[in-house]
Amino acid sequence: MGVGYSSCSLSLSLSYSHISCFASTTTTTTLLSSHKSTPNSSLNPPTSKFHYQKPTYTTMTAQSSSSPMFLPIQSGRVEEIKTQYHNSTKPVSDLHSLDLELIQRLVYDSLVWSSLHGLVVGDKNVQRSGTVPGVGMVHAPFALLPMSFPESQWRQACELAPIFNELVDRVSLDANFLQESLSRTKKADAFTSRLLDIHSKMLESGKKEEIRLGLHRSDYMLDEQTKLLLQIELNTISSSFPGLSCLVSELHRSILNQYKEHLGLDSRRIPGNTAVSQFAEALTKAWKEYNNPRAVVMVVVQPEERNMYDQHWLCSVLKERHDVTTIRKTLAEIEAQGVLLPDGTLLIGNQVIAVIYFRAGYAPIDYPSESEWRARELMEQSSAVKCPSISYHLTGTKKVQQELAKPNVLERFLENKEDIAKLRKCFAGLWSLDDSNTVKDAIERPEFYVMKPQREGGGNNIYGDDVRKTLLRLQVEGSEEDAAYILMQRIFPTIVPTFLMRDGICHKDHAISELGIYSAYLRNKENVIMNEQCGYLMRTKVSSSNEGGVAAGFAVLDSVYLT
Amino acid sequence: MGVGYSSCSLSLSLSYSHISCFASTTTTTTLLSSHKSTPNSSLNPPTSKFHYQKPTYTTMTAQSSSSPMFLPIQSGRVEEIKTQYHNSTKPVSDLHSLDLELIQRLVYDSLVWSSLHGLVVGDKNVQRSGTVPGVGMVHAPFALLPMSFPESQWRQACELAPIFNELVDRVSLDANFLQESLSRTKKADAFTSRLLDIHSKMLESGKKEEIRLGLHRSDYMLDEQTKLLLQIELNTISSSFPGLSCLVSELHRSILNQYKEHLGLDSRRIPGNTAVSQFAEALTKAWKEYNNPRAVVMVVVQPEERNMYDQHWLCSVLKERHDVTTIRKTLAEIEAQGVLLPDGTLLIGNQVIAVIYFRAGYAPIDYPSESEWRARELMEQSSAVKCPSISYHLTGTKKVQQELAKPNVLERFLENKEDIAKLRKCFAGLWSLDDSNTVKDAIERPEFYVMKPQREGGGNNIYGDDVRKTLLRLQVEGSEEDAAYILMQRIFPTIVPTFLMRDGICHKDHAISELGIYSAYLRNKENVIMNEQCGYLMRTKVSSSNEGGVAAGFAVLDSVYLT
Repeated sequence: MGVGYSSCSLSLSLSYSHISCFASTTTTTTLLSSHKSTPNSSLNPPTSKFHYQKPTYTTMTAQSSSSPMFLPIQSGRVEEIKTQYHNSTKPVSDLHSLDLELIQRLVYDSLVWSSLHGLVVGDKNVQRSGTVPGVGMVHAPFALLPMSFPESQWRQACELAPIFNELVDRVSLDANFLQESLSRTKKADAFTSRLLDIHSKMLESGKKEEIRLGLHRSDYMLDEQTKLLLQIELNTISSSFPGLSCLVSELHRSILNQYKEHLGLDSRRIPGNTAVSQFAEALTKAWKEYNNPRAVVMVVVQPEERNMYDQHWLCSVLKERHDVTTIRKTLAEIEAQGVLLPDGTLLIGNQVIAVIYFRAGYAPIDYPSESEWRARELMEQSSAVKCPSISYHLTGTKKVQQELAKPNVLERFLENKEDIAKLRKCFAGLWSLDDSNTVKDAIERPEFYVMKPQREGGGNNIYGDDVRKTLLRLQVEGSEEDAAYILMQRIFPTIVPTFLMRDGICHKDHAISELGIYSAYLRNKENVIMNEQCGYLMRTKVSSSNEGGVAAGFAVLDSVYLT
Repeated sequence: MGVGYSSCSLSLSLSYSHISCFASTTTTTTLLSSHKSTPNSSLNPPTSKFHYQKPTYTTMTAQSSSSPMFLPIQSGRVEEIKTQYHNSTKPVSDLHSLDLELIQRLVYDSLVWSSLHGLVVGDKNVQRSGTVPGVGMVHAPFALLPMSFPESQWRQACELAPIFNELVDRVSLDANFLQESLSRTKKADAFTSRLLDIHSKMLESGKKEEIRLGLHRSDYMLDEQTKLLLQIELNTISSSFPGLSCLVSELHRSILNQYKEHLGLDSRRIPGNTAVSQFAEALTKAWKEYNNPRAVVMVVVQPEERNMYDQHWLCSVLKERHDVTTIRKTLAEIEAQGVLLPDGTLLIGNQVIAVIYFRAGYAPIDYPSESEWRARELMEQSSAVKCPSISYHLTGTKKVQQELAKPNVLERFLENKEDIAKLRKCFAGLWSLDDSNTVKDAIERPEFYVMKPQREGGGNNIYGDDVRKTLLRLQVEGSEEDAAYILMQRIFPTIVPTFLMRDGICHKDHAISELGIYSAYLRNKENVIMNEQCGYLMRTKVSSSNEGGVAAGFAVLDSVYLT
């Protein structure tokens, strides 16, 4: 419906140097480089006073909307990057041709749609928003329009999903490969070390996971110059946003249909997003494999979770479509209430747990005491289907990603040459810090590298001159700390003008996107039961000057418009 | 799904004398006696510090849940009322038999359901929640379980709907009856006076409404002792909650299905609620009668509206199911942007208005300046279908309600004796303050009367000893002010233990309910096009001591469970 818009804010960034006011680099990078929501969910960063005081924005007026909305980039460094990687991909719609009134209608209608259809998160400004459902809700940050993406690379990403599923399963079974790959990391990273300890203990006790469930998300960026689809990371634990990503696709389809005449876009070019229904299907099938009709699915959650509605959507579909009951427990609650029967049955209270679905437990912060580690070990010892098992979790570490990119390593796990070639094609350059030639090059040309710590949960990547400084420091110190990092080729995706919605306010800015492809894998002792691509997550974020278009700025949920 | 509940609050009122802390009588009475949402929507009263400090509640414990949860009523006055009107109707479920864990699961799951399905309102604690959609949302207050209601009285209420529709239409055509009935009120009530002025002006200009659309809601209470269904009022303007009431029925059905084993209730006994779809259908048919495919429906709104999602639901169905576009405008915006063409066409900007749907304009506060009155007159002069016209609006006043209850008045408008008998059966005692015998009785026995001011928007009813005091004051003053009031028989509905959800917190308390039946009426010059009952609104509210179970306490949305 159309509306009166007087109360809807529409802001225009005046200069890139102000963008960093939106959100700290830390919270923002979390969303870019990680699949998880953290207690300080970057989907909902602190409300900047700039939104209300607006000293750094001009509210769009009839005048401003008719003049070019992008001011010259003021930082020389960014100018250089812009010259190198100019915008050659067309945006979904020529934003300069959209008039202010139309944008305001799109803004208002999409905010209404979000509110009515549960595209919401907890508002960090409201105290109980991470613990009590139904209070302190705000629309999830989203892009006003879908993001263009070439159809061939889209298909390529979808085709990779079942191959990565198979790879994860095979790697997870090679305990020696995991332990060896991570042996130096173990010394430098306490968190990985604890995971490896549990892994070793399971090996020693002869524990085998016969029913194996993976709900993964492989994240990609499209390199502007080479047009290559390059993998950022493969998430094997807590892949977030299967619920909300589906809603954003629906929102964009609704908007495109409603404003067909004005936008001239075809809603059918937004791929259907079935992440939530297929994840629910996979969980249901795993629950059936466990074969106890009284048993439940347990979602392992953080004590505070402002991204709870994304999780609730999945549980809601599980209940309403499959009549499978879920319970939500923190690691501390599991330690307090969990009992392991001699046959391996995990009881929480008096409920048998068929499937353990982790939406917590991927980061050191989730284990504030030994209790949480005991809970993790208790679950791993049980006969419940773990999503993921400790082996699947370790397979998703960056160090393993880097090891798999070495020559002849994929061949240890896969037979099909075509599949291997497909995987290798999407691998970005990945190097250990043992590789002195690469380290030397990275010190000389740090702008072409990203340093990624082993730490899960993202938000700790190192860019630009900090790469050089950190590498030099590690060389001087000569400690084991270098094993906590890998070096990765820096990807420069296309930068496009975008409308980003957050906290009821529309920001127009230059942005980059990252495509996540969900996939589900389930097998038992005999057969593969499910091995599918399951919808997608498009995330779009402001590319700000200080990180040269890759790391800073705030991120929003988006959808794909195939071109 | 089941959940971990540690963070969900469940409060138990310790004594009735504390209940008044929840909400002021003013805001509360609004919800009880009115159909409209006000800027200070009582659906979302100020958050009392008691919720957080909890000095007046005990959090339920295993002990407290197993012992009777209702403490003796401490006020002698209330005790008396309780003796008079004891609880004889069985509640939906024996609440004493529900264990704490089950209640916590119901609470959590219903909060999740509300969040995912758009059963939300603006949170008054968040500044922009009444102006910007998608920010500062909180679940709408709702009852945890549906309210028992006898099937025969339910059917009776539904059958009355088309008769009242017809009555409103007939009365609206009798300009002299309206002017005469309200002639004394005009002198005492400035707001009614302005409405009458517009009415007179239209009469003088010979303006006729050939397409007449009514979206009404008739509110009833069930008298405990006599089991009579008695009408509280008939709303002909801004009947609110057609959107959210449907959602509460769905919520309760979902909860009853999910907890069938535990609750032993049959979700099919909750009548399907089609208010929003039928209101949308009526608006669409009126839009078609106007017969201009480029024209839109205009919703007249208050500048701040925290109940906006209820309205958005209706507009969303209008757009998605019927492809009818709505715009939202305040009275001030209409005055500023409205143009009346010589043929009566109303333009707002460059949009032709086919139907004007009022969700504002029913209370003096909506007309802070002459601009708003000019807007109202402009609309009335136009050829747009008004919902309601000034005549329909006046027909819904309390004074007209009281006049219609006089002997032989209904017979002036309706022919069918059975219909007349049905209407009369639901009339409570209604008297003018001209009636000296009744006034004398009300001074002697004020507990059996309610004084209702003419003022729309509710919240100003007078109860108990204040009835006596006000009547005596008016007698002494001898002014015209008495014409601003009517006297009504006080109805004492059944008081039942209920769980009321607000702001994420569950309160168990004694409560009473009011049933609103929505109805739609549309006719053109030749034919009645639509005359239907359209779903319902059940509102349940705490019956607190100071008002003897009728007026104070906070109100929540509820649904009907037929018994």
